[in-house]
Amino acid sequence: MRLPKSVRMVEVGPRDGLQNEKQIVPTAVKIGLVDRLTDAGLTAIEAGSFVSPKWVPQMADTPDVFAGIRRKEGVRYAALTPNAKGLEGALAARADEVAVFAAASESFSRKNINCSIAESLDRFVPVLEQAKARGVPVRGYVSCVLGCPYEGEIAPAAVAEVAGRLLDMGCYEVSLGDTIGTGTPAKAQAMIAAVAERVPMDRIAVHFHDTYGQALANILAALEMGVAVVDSSVAGLGGCPYAKGASGNVASEDVLYMLNGLGIETGVDLDRLVAAGAYISDAIGRPTASKVARARGCA
Amino acid sequence: MRLPKSVRMVEVGPRDGLQNEKQIVPTAVKIGLVDRLTDAGLTAIEAGSFVSPKWVPQMADTPDVFAGIRRKEGVRYAALTPNAKGLEGALAARADEVAVFAAASESFSRKNINCSIAESLDRFVPVLEQAKARGVPVRGYVSCVLGCPYEGEIAPAAVAEVAGRLLDMGCYEVSLGDTIGTGTPAKAQAMIAAVAERVPMDRIAVHFHDTYGQALANILAALEMGVAVVDSSVAGLGGCPYAKGASGNVASEDVLYMLNGLGIETGVDLDRLVAAGAYISDAIGRPTASKVARARGCA
Repeated sequence: MRLPKSVRMVEVGPRDGLQNEKQIVPTAVKIGLVDRLTDAGLTAIEAGSFVSPKWVPQMADTPDVFAGIRRKEGVRYAALTPNAKGLEGALAARADEVAVFAAASESFSRKNINCSIAESLDRFVPVLEQAKARGVPVRGYVSCVLGCPYEGEIAPAAVAEVAGRLLDMGCYEVSLGDTIGTGTPAKAQAMIAAVAERVPMDRIAVHFHDTYGQALANILAALEMGVAVVDSSVAGLGGCPYAKGASGNVASEDVLYMLNGLGIETGVDLDRLVAAGAYISDAIGRPTASKVARARGCA
Repeated sequence: MRLPKSVRMVEVGPRDGLQNEKQIVPTAVKIGLVDRLTDAGLTAIEAGSFVSPKWVPQMADTPDVFAGIRRKEGVRYAALTPNAKGLEGALAARADEVAVFAAASESFSRKNINCSIAESLDRFVPVLEQAKARGVPVRGYVSCVLGCPYEGEIAPAAVAEVAGRLLDMGCYEVSLGDTIGTGTPAKAQAMIAAVAERVPMDRIAVHFHDTYGQALANILAALEMGVAVVDSSVAGLGGCPYAKGASGNVASEDVLYMLNGLGIETGVDLDRLVAAGAYISDAIGRPTASKVARARGCA
């Protein structure tokens, strides 16, 4: 089994996770979570989103979260920025990195953000230009890379096209998201292979949802292709409320357990990560979705 | 990705699963489950165990289960037989296949069945002789192949030794069980490679527990080695009550979903398998452990 020696884990729980929980989580809890993730050794933490509080009330306090967290040297605290105004907010909050997003499915793009894929990319041009001018790295997300709730399977070429455009526009990395979690390992590899013709392998990240239990197998398949950046969400927080049945980001604890077993370096401490997951699960009063955390709790 | 073209799924829910549920499941429900699994297209179903009802009251009605099920040509209904008396019962019940078991860990063997590995194997000699005389195939299970609750990691050579002895004694196939679910893909492959030096690949089956969420990734790793027989439990029934924290056979629905996605033939119908899982989950009043089943329920 050929695998990368080290993997960068990108923690999306405080944003992608909490944004999709029904309740509004108190700012102090979010700060407590980010600080615990920092202490666990993560170096990439998506801490919030600068979007209209009208659309995403869960993220309305993102400026306060950024103001309250304890920043550690070498850790990048990122924010989602859907437009130029969001970028301004992120810059004012001293986000180390921002992120933009597009879908690989036309139907999903129209139903989710009410515009075509091409239009959504055009909207990000000023964001990327301004971010570049300010020296802030931009990450690109592509959703629906292995399936769409409206269109079913998505052609790998369509994913490659969107990923390639995000890279051309200036994204330093493209994260490929299986938004509805329907992907399986061979299809994941075929999709990654198509993207890799347009985007260098070391600019590709994967973002799997565990809706159908396939996330870890898909991550393993991606690692075997040479992918070395993996998104995950502590305690399996969140999902995508717009995609039918699409609950469940893969739990960071379970990803780390596998990476540890594979002998892959991450710099992340499992005990502390499990503790961070226990903290947020307790705070929001829902059981953890991490099997590793549950197994340790029973032991 | 090199994968087998077809996989034989061995369904262990009615035995390994229900044996480890706390409640005693009514005989009619067990029969209803086995019949639904037959209808789903499974060709190997572990339907019960001929053990002392004193030790395993959940399996006391195994003769009645065997008498009540609707048998389909080409399907093998198997029973666990820990000794010569159990074999007699299985033969009287017209089991198509029987199974014996040993541990790869000395400590586990002593604590679980109160004898050494060598002694446990010796006890099975008359079972295998008699089964052979009667023309009944015998399957061998090896537990703790990737970890032991008392010893921690287990040497692949120890697994290979026990697996090889079971084959030498007359077992037609050896199922390698990660009883406590701590295994990860590369370690699973190293273990399988060691066993394959003693046992032909087409006599090796894998039996993963999902305690730490690693089962599907481990199964993928095993398939890549050429393993083409996979044990699983519908709705993720059961686990091992003797192993600390070891709940959770991998759910058959989730395994089949992955195999379907990989284009691997199984002859099993996912809709009917999900229906069988829904039937038993309703009957015993506990939520399914299958993520595929849950995702479909929400959709």
